[in-house]
Amino acid sequence: MNGAPSTGTIVQFWYEFASTYSYPAAMRVEASAAAQGVVVSWRPFLLGPIFAELGWTTSPFNLQPAKGRYMWRDLARICAREGLAFVRPEPFPQNTLLAARVAMALPDGAQRAAFTRAVYQAEFELGLTISDHTVLANALAQAGDVEAEALRLAETPDVKLALRAATEEAQAVGLFGAPTFVTPDGELFWGFDRMDEAMAWARNADTIRVEPR
Amino acid sequence: MNGAPSTGTIVQFWYEFASTYSYPAAMRVEASAAAQGVVVSWRPFLLGPIFAELGWTTSPFNLQPAKGRYMWRDLARICAREGLAFVRPEPFPQNTLLAARVAMALPDGAQRAAFTRAVYQAEFELGLTISDHTVLANALAQAGDVEAEALRLAETPDVKLALRAATEEAQAVGLFGAPTFVTPDGELFWGFDRMDEAMAWARNADTIRVEPR
Repeated sequence: MNGAPSTGTIVQFWYEFASTYSYPAAMRVEASAAAQGVVVSWRPFLLGPIFAELGWTTSPFNLQPAKGRYMWRDLARICAREGLAFVRPEPFPQNTLLAARVAMALPDGAQRAAFTRAVYQAEFELGLTISDHTVLANALAQAGDVEAEALRLAETPDVKLALRAATEEAQAVGLFGAPTFVTPDGELFWGFDRMDEAMAWARNADTIRVEPR
Repeated sequence: MNGAPSTGTIVQFWYEFASTYSYPAAMRVEASAAAQGVVVSWRPFLLGPIFAELGWTTSPFNLQPAKGRYMWRDLARICAREGLAFVRPEPFPQNTLLAARVAMALPDGAQRAAFTRAVYQAEFELGLTISDHTVLANALAQAGDVEAEALRLAETPDVKLALRAATEEAQAVGLFGAPTFVTPDGELFWGFDRMDEAMAWARNADTIRVEPR
């Protein structure tokens, strides 16, 4: 599960597969990072346990209908501007536990990135159900894992524990939503609209090496 | 209480005096609008009744401590970038009922704008209590109302009803937070980080005249 780049200025990109604004972030984060000469670490986690501590049993966009209506419109505007296709997932939010475990089973780096993008595209471009094994196997194939080996690994205790540890780390760091970008000096930047700012911050801050995870 | 510009492309700037991101918005909205050749209508309202319908008795930044911690840091970064002073109001949120009524008592336009900025500066630059009559009288003086006539009007039934109507309008339009920018074609843009986008949208959309309020 390791494989994160060990040198250079690393910005952690924390994402949850059900998070709507994580979709454009996943599709554009590499370009945003490259523009500032920094490197992305791909950090899947689950928002469910964090929301549960607030007493929430579903997405805040479902709990607050006005905010939800706004979000779908805002996301459509963003996708149009970014040249990204957009369909609204049904149901929303999707069950993302297996997809997140599969992402954890892949090495941080190009392969996890490719799988992550493929899952978001399945969800937000094609309207597919991302808890479906076939959908995940296809996403793995796009990431070069044609045997879907990571789908088998996803069910092992090591990977399950790794995802739980990542979610606990996210909570300890102070994450409350996704996407969130964390710079080497510990700054948090929440939201697709803070992505470029995070990368610029990381470039300008003193470079602190982050241990690969 | 009228006085909104009656011609040109008008973007409604909806603000709540307790709203943290409304502070940089109030200080920069005129410049943002001018850059796109559009005009600002200043729309004070109350978030309290809207939050109350969600069962909230205080700011979501208090209800969600991690989100609150992030917000204060994010706001400090924004103020630094914008060259704005920043102190954290105590207590947070402030009681904003009287300030909002005073704003309603002023004509929409330069005088309401000047009062609004002066209140935000009292709150976020000087750390003053904006429910205080003296603070509001000083803000009115900065807006040219040296006799604090608007402070007297603020207690009249007409102004109280006008603020209640504005808050009901905000809710009907779908507002759930502040600042929110509403363009002539009915698009909503929520947050200081959407301000420039709202102005650009308004300039590019077909110009629809909005009746002064």
